[in-house]
Amino acid sequence: MKKGVYNMISERMKPYVNNNSAIRAMFEEGNRLKALYGEDKVFDFSIGNPNVPAPDCVQETIIDLVKNMDPVVLHGYMNNAGFEDVRQSIAESLNRRFGTNFAAKNLIMTVGAASGLNITFKALLNPGDEVIVFAPYFLEYGAYVKNYDGVLVEVSPDTSTFQPNLEEFKSKINEKTKAVIVNNPHNPTGVVYSEDTIKKLAAILEEKEKEVGHPIYLISDEPYRELAYDGVEVPYLTKYYKDTIVGYSYSKSLSLPGERIGYVVIPDELDGSDEVIQAATIANRILGSVNAPSLIQKVVGRCVDAAVNVEYYDRNRKTLYEGLTKLGFECVKPQGAFYLFVKSPTKDEKEFVEAAKKYNILMVAGSSFACPGYVRLSYCVSYESIQNSLPEFAKLAKELF
Amino acid sequence: MKKGVYNMISERMKPYVNNNSAIRAMFEEGNRLKALYGEDKVFDFSIGNPNVPAPDCVQETIIDLVKNMDPVVLHGYMNNAGFEDVRQSIAESLNRRFGTNFAAKNLIMTVGAASGLNITFKALLNPGDEVIVFAPYFLEYGAYVKNYDGVLVEVSPDTSTFQPNLEEFKSKINEKTKAVIVNNPHNPTGVVYSEDTIKKLAAILEEKEKEVGHPIYLISDEPYRELAYDGVEVPYLTKYYKDTIVGYSYSKSLSLPGERIGYVVIPDELDGSDEVIQAATIANRILGSVNAPSLIQKVVGRCVDAAVNVEYYDRNRKTLYEGLTKLGFECVKPQGAFYLFVKSPTKDEKEFVEAAKKYNILMVAGSSFACPGYVRLSYCVSYESIQNSLPEFAKLAKELF
Repeated sequence: MKKGVYNMISERMKPYVNNNSAIRAMFEEGNRLKALYGEDKVFDFSIGNPNVPAPDCVQETIIDLVKNMDPVVLHGYMNNAGFEDVRQSIAESLNRRFGTNFAAKNLIMTVGAASGLNITFKALLNPGDEVIVFAPYFLEYGAYVKNYDGVLVEVSPDTSTFQPNLEEFKSKINEKTKAVIVNNPHNPTGVVYSEDTIKKLAAILEEKEKEVGHPIYLISDEPYRELAYDGVEVPYLTKYYKDTIVGYSYSKSLSLPGERIGYVVIPDELDGSDEVIQAATIANRILGSVNAPSLIQKVVGRCVDAAVNVEYYDRNRKTLYEGLTKLGFECVKPQGAFYLFVKSPTKDEKEFVEAAKKYNILMVAGSSFACPGYVRLSYCVSYESIQNSLPEFAKLAKELF
Repeated sequence: MKKGVYNMISERMKPYVNNNSAIRAMFEEGNRLKALYGEDKVFDFSIGNPNVPAPDCVQETIIDLVKNMDPVVLHGYMNNAGFEDVRQSIAESLNRRFGTNFAAKNLIMTVGAASGLNITFKALLNPGDEVIVFAPYFLEYGAYVKNYDGVLVEVSPDTSTFQPNLEEFKSKINEKTKAVIVNNPHNPTGVVYSEDTIKKLAAILEEKEKEVGHPIYLISDEPYRELAYDGVEVPYLTKYYKDTIVGYSYSKSLSLPGERIGYVVIPDELDGSDEVIQAATIANRILGSVNAPSLIQKVVGRCVDAAVNVEYYDRNRKTLYEGLTKLGFECVKPQGAFYLFVKSPTKDEKEFVEAAKKYNILMVAGSSFACPGYVRLSYCVSYESIQNSLPEFAKLAKELF
């Protein structure tokens, strides 16, 4: 057999293999540097891996379930959409907090938000259907849409506020538009889309739905919902626009990113609601998740009122934001998530990223979010790391300004 | 907007929504009957949900990890392929048991075997690539292959032994053949493919690889590996054919079906090994799993030598097999998994399934496994249920014979 002549892997996977996630590459670079210089000498702002431990409720509930629940049920199959009691408990919690009116059947438990988005696109997209995103955005959205032969359509960033550019958005909607993704609070900028923005966005969508003659689904990706600061409100989008699907994850709100647990909300008001719920539930099965992990489903069902220590992130946010702006770096003040999106002092932000490495500071280039000229800093690190990084940022500023 | 004119869900999902899993439908029918007649009055042989609890090691390890491990690590992100120490521990266990030579890098931890198969097909298939399966087979294979625009090619069953029909197999391999799935021990028949069968299968594949000029991957789906009886050996296929990828799940071996934990093995000897490992790891990420659930990864890594009570299933197997054959039902004696595949006494096996319902006996029609004329019984139920079902089967036999 002639080795190398035949294509071993799928043609579709080759671009991914040739250009593996820049964020992940940085993560591995971080591990290399830490092994070399010591954990506390490397300032790794590259990845959104929460450093605040899960709230006590999580550990206590795991132990209680393992000690007291029948293991055949606890670790067993359930409906592909998830345990009924868990979905009911989450639905009630959402209804209490946001004045919504969800039942268990409106929720599908998923293997994190990434899987929630995948089953949503699998359920909805026909080849060539367009999905609009607002730059900067999490580049994996492109892969999720492409998995189902959809086409990602970018709206360029409004770098003055990093609120979505609604004029350009309007111009990009056409008959092929099947969905729009918003991410609120926002990765990578930390911005929270205001109620005013959301109302305008909803008005455009309602108008355009009539024009194109079919639903345009608004997909609200909300893993950072609970991480909002300065008392800012994060609007619950199903209340502003009926064709909204919400994707949620407990990765950040309960510090469980490795556990892969989240859910999708498909409200009754959504056009084609029953069909979409069915299709997404089947997609959960045939894409291979089958169901979200069972023990951790039960845990989040019982910990609906628990939250990680948001104050910890808030102190990090303030210290890093104030420290960096004092040094002359420019950055929109973030009100949510755990990211700062800093304007690069060099024209090509990759030079900025490279220069920072000399001081053992790791950040991700904005081009990894379709927004060159900026860098993302994840401040979900220890407070000491933030404090100790500032003198290094000072040296970096001295070199660059 | 004209409701119902526009197609809300993907065209590709419509066949699934219109014809939802027959097995699942039966599962729900079972729940309905149980609510009506009482749990112990319904003999539900329809679904492979293990009724033997997870071994003690699982519960003990969960509690130990939660009490003693840093929660930021325990519930945090790791390499998309899984925790290094877990993969190392499983690789070493396989090497001890089967004389293989795997390292951590040859394993990717997955969200169960279903997800393992999905990432494998995502990594390998180009549109139109053919994947061969031996009937009867788990119909979900068809969905997994179709997810990546592959084409499923069926080899018809040899109903005398339910070993694979190798002559027909040989005739169905051509240049488009990218992979072959075997499931050993076998769902739905309970047959174990013998070493002799595997050697012949491997010889055919080696010959055909040369003929077509490219690798043909043998995908061994092995969730039932540990459930083998009568001292029968289940061959480890990487030792017989170098282009083998193994998919494994702890759903049955540790009774953790709801937890969604398994792995894929991609040996160094496999043609294009490094590329396939990379592509499958990236597929794990972009299909939305990102990684297998973290806590349960650590659990299986520590419980590599634990096993469920296989004797329990064995007693069920013997009692049901003997009871049914004594009543005149025909069935190949199963040596693995927890299924009996019984010849239908009526020409259309759906009539048999319907007749059984009158006695509160639930089984799955063989046409759900591309093998009409038979029914599948899952004997992963309580022993009492097996015992109490036999008088009902006697009534059923009296009605049908």
